[in-house]
Amino acid sequence: MPNQASDIVARLAALGLAVPEPAAPVANYVGATLSGALLFVSGQLPFGADGALGAAHRGKVGADVTPEAAQAAARLCALNVLGQAQLALGDLRRLKRCLRVGGFVAAAPGFVGVPGVVNGASDLIVAALGEAGRHARAAVGVAELPLGACVEIEATFEVAA
Amino acid sequence: MPNQASDIVARLAALGLAVPEPAAPVANYVGATLSGALLFVSGQLPFGADGALGAAHRGKVGADVTPEAAQAAARLCALNVLGQAQLALGDLRRLKRCLRVGGFVAAAPGFVGVPGVVNGASDLIVAALGEAGRHARAAVGVAELPLGACVEIEATFEVAA
Amino acid sequence: MPNQASDIVARLAALGLAVPEPAAPVANYVGATLSGALLFVSGQLPFGADGALGAAHRGKVGADVTPEAAQAAARLCALNVLGQAQLALGDLRRLKRCLRVGGFVAAAPGFVGVPGVVNGASDLIVAALGEAGRHARAAVGVAELPLGACVEIEATFEVAA
Repeated sequence: MPNQASDIVARLAALGLAVPEPAAPVANYVGATLSGALLFVSGQLPFGADGALGAAHRGKVGADVTPEAAQAAARLCALNVLGQAQLALGDLRRLKRCLRVGGFVAAAPGFVGVPGVVNGASDLIVAALGEAGRHARAAVGVAELPLGACVEIEATFEVAA
Repeated sequence: MPNQASDIVARLAALGLAVPEPAAPVANYVGATLSGALLFVSGQLPFGADGALGAAHRGKVGADVTPEAAQAAARLCALNVLGQAQLALGDLRRLKRCLRVGGFVAAAPGFVGVPGVVNGASDLIVAALGEAGRHARAAVGVAELPLGACVEIEATFEVAA
Repeated sequence: MPNQASDIVARLAALGLAVPEPAAPVANYVGATLSGALLFVSGQLPFGADGALGAAHRGKVGADVTPEAAQAAARLCALNVLGQAQLALGDLRRLKRCLRVGGFVAAAPGFVGVPGVVNGASDLIVAALGEAGRHARAAVGVAELPLGACVEIEATFEVAA
């Protein structure tokens, strides 16, 4: 059913994707917090399945990183968002909807194709949650991101009680 | 009454302003999401009543765009925020309060007048909602915005059940 | 008790810190908004106890400002976040948890140590609230901040009814 997010793992598996088990943050913050029906997920970087930040995903989009590579990086970020949600909730079937995505793109001067990059994250979340994945979004081009990553994605979800 | 947001359309009309009917996003996200009493509105660009991004609102504030033009652009962004709220809610009278505004200004090197620019959005929201429009706010200067826009504004509202 | 935030003032006093009484914003926004159990605190700058933005906390991190000075600035921002919360709630003991921190660092080109800077805020919030202070977080490097500040910190808290 398009408005249910109950088969996220199966949808992703059909795309050849798995929800990663993310590493815990190494500072005084956590991957996600839950308050009532709201789950706030920390900004995620495009770490791959091996836990590493690939060279193709470091640098400024429009200079060091192509828009296509950055879109793929945003997709990885979104997978890691789902990984943090799974870690926090125990079961992704508790995700009811994605409410908001914040997308930050490390933009070279003059690179204004920010939305296309963040679409990599939005598309992944909709692929995973169906219609329930369609979210409000703010997408901006920033100066620098942690570890020199080209994209960072944070998200807020509505969660079943 | 100053603490009610029930006559937003009338207040704006008295200023010669109308709430625009925004175009739907052309990607896998939506203009706004509603969860319980919270409405999350996507980051809006300064599209004018004709749906176009004017040349005066493209580029970096402090270089290509004057602070005054950027403030006017922020006001347009806020009108478009209200347009998305209207589209999502059907009736702006359901808006109870504005809780948070995120303001992103495409800043030329050394342009630190970010708050003055974002005031264009804050003032419009307070003009529309009265005291109920007074919000928490984060305002920052970013590297690049979608389509080369000089400002982007997102907002969160409290909505009547 | 590690999961209670009831002795914030005492914890800070033990560190030689006091929660400042912040100045009201000088524009059409407020320091914080409360909706149900959610408190949204506006982005705070590193004003010191004297209400001034010190010269050591102005400019770009990695060029004008050292990472260490920026981390200290982020700590000041977080104190000011608590100050705004106190002003809004009357009593910080109403803070139950910190849900989300947004950290914006004015980054010189190539400065990717954004997380270390924002740790100054995260560590202060955890020092004040204990385990209840551990939050979701998005940390990015931006182009410019209001008044030329090197850091800005916003936060969302869960509040007791």
